Amino acid sequence: MNEARRDITSETDTYPTRVFDREYWTDRKDPVVWADWSEHSPISREQAQSYERNGYLVIRDAFSPAEIRHLQDAAHDLRQALGGSDAEDVITEPGTDAVRTIFRLERYSSMFLRLAQDARLAGVARFLMGEDVYIHQSRLNYKPGFTGKEFYWHSDFETWHAEDGMPRPRAVSASVLLTDNSALNGPLMLIPGSHRHFIGCAGKTPERNHETSLKAQKVGTPSHGALEWLVDRYGIDPAVGPAGTLIFFDSNTMHGSNGNITPFPRSNAFFVFNAVSNQLRQPYAAPNPRPEFLAERGRPVPLPVRKGPLA
Amino acid sequence: MNEARRDITSETDTYPTRVFDREYWTDRKDPVVWADWSEHSPISREQAQSYERNGYLVIRDAFSPAEIRHLQDAAHDLRQALGGSDAEDVITEPGTDAVRTIFRLERYSSMFLRLAQDARLAGVARFLMGEDVYIHQSRLNYKPGFTGKEFYWHSDFETWHAEDGMPRPRAVSASVLLTDNSALNGPLMLIPGSHRHFIGCAGKTPERNHETSLKAQKVGTPSHGALEWLVDRYGIDPAVGPAGTLIFFDSNTMHGSNGNITPFPRSNAFFVFNAVSNQLRQPYAAPNPRPEFLAERGRPVPLPVRKGPLA
Repeated sequence: MNEARRDITSETDTYPTRVFDREYWTDRKDPVVWADWSEHSPISREQAQSYERNGYLVIRDAFSPAEIRHLQDAAHDLRQALGGSDAEDVITEPGTDAVRTIFRLERYSSMFLRLAQDARLAGVARFLMGEDVYIHQSRLNYKPGFTGKEFYWHSDFETWHAEDGMPRPRAVSASVLLTDNSALNGPLMLIPGSHRHFIGCAGKTPERNHETSLKAQKVGTPSHGALEWLVDRYGIDPAVGPAGTLIFFDSNTMHGSNGNITPFPRSNAFFVFNAVSNQLRQPYAAPNPRPEFLAERGRPVPLPVRKGPLA
Repeated sequence: MNEARRDITSETDTYPTRVFDREYWTDRKDPVVWADWSEHSPISREQAQSYERNGYLVIRDAFSPAEIRHLQDAAHDLRQALGGSDAEDVITEPGTDAVRTIFRLERYSSMFLRLAQDARLAGVARFLMGEDVYIHQSRLNYKPGFTGKEFYWHSDFETWHAEDGMPRPRAVSASVLLTDNSALNGPLMLIPGSHRHFIGCAGKTPERNHETSLKAQKVGTPSHGALEWLVDRYGIDPAVGPAGTLIFFDSNTMHGSNGNITPFPRSNAFFVFNAVSNQLRQPYAAPNPRPEFLAERGRPVPLPVRKGPLA
């Protein structure tokens, strides 16, 4: 039984959150990049070091113009096909048939399954996590212009640990931009270096929290003081770029996005890759686990990694 | 009787808005820069041309570090002194004593009166408007970090014409940044060139519209189609810069701002200079004029222009 495994099964929670009535900080106890870099690694040494240091990595021009067009077409078709769907993993704008989010994206589309398996996504994720990975969560996000809502600061791992039972921050998110994203249309904002601090949040998780937390998180957000400390120390980086830009970020990197009144919509395909040894357990700080479309609870099946162009 | 004056007193409204049940576009019938540039003008020829073309002008380093500090101190003291005030021109955050906006700023503070009269503000405004100016509206804005709300796209002149009875777009706004403003903390966004199109809005002005329109405008905002057309043609420019940056923009330039979840607050002193010949009449499209703290209705008193450093 290795170190990590022993700790996971101990009585003590390494990353306590939503336990106390106040915020509780813990230093990160785990690596950020779990494999040693070699010349066979799928990213450069500088990229690996940058990800380790900042908790995120932006790769422009990861895809060819033809690949980007294929992905945009697939996203468009999927959104049309699922308009008005009442599936639990298809979220529509209140009061309309317009699709805002499609969860479990790779089950709805062979094109997006292929994207998830691509060496540029799953291959990099497998390197960063130092072992095989599976898809913990995936989604196609479509945020319209004019009325794009903000998403407040949070660490994904804080939620996944508390509500899904993810033991360790051994997961990485990959976002493929399907629209151009500038500093003005509500880009992903990250606090570089924040992934080295786990901010255990004050308060308890209410029942069926996910039904409201996907729109606006209440429990599981850091205090103003915590954010001031982090931003004062590390600053804020926007992750911007043209369609086709690929963004990786650590599960514990603090991030959020402003609203968007510009006419420019934002669309992206989003995959969370979790290490197979980091399989979910019972929630660490919630009465019940969230639904499977938000957090894969089946036995982890290692994702194959495919090379070559998409489509 | 000159051209402009005749038109103002005619029966026909040159800039119809909130009259029809659909949007109605009118080309601008008035100059943007009303004086001829000379080497004695308070801005350079390039600056005057840029303002004419884009409908706005950003001047960095207009004030010395000592002047900026004086203004920030004055803003801080004023906000402390007026906390919990129930004056109609002091707006507090709902449920708290925290001051969000102080209207008629120059009546509350000799320092800000002096700022309004400064050659760098009133002097430039007098040049752009081609005659003496007076203060149509002024305010000190304090938008906190974390929870800064968006302000949707609008033309100020559309409101001032409809609700205050301002005849012509012969007014210019000056904003002095008292905090650093980046693309990420909800800066003023402007559509350069939009000032040459007057977009008459659909619908009628409800009674006491200003009581809700200061928080979020409903009547008096352009359609998505109108904004798409403008942005497609002209793009969007953020007006950013460090504290002390001075921004002028035409009364008819389409502008707005995104919300702000960053810890960085935004504060600015804001003055609207109207040409004395452009005195308010009865509202063009509202049952009653708005209160005087939003729109000066007294006989225009030309603002003196003062040179030399502040304080």
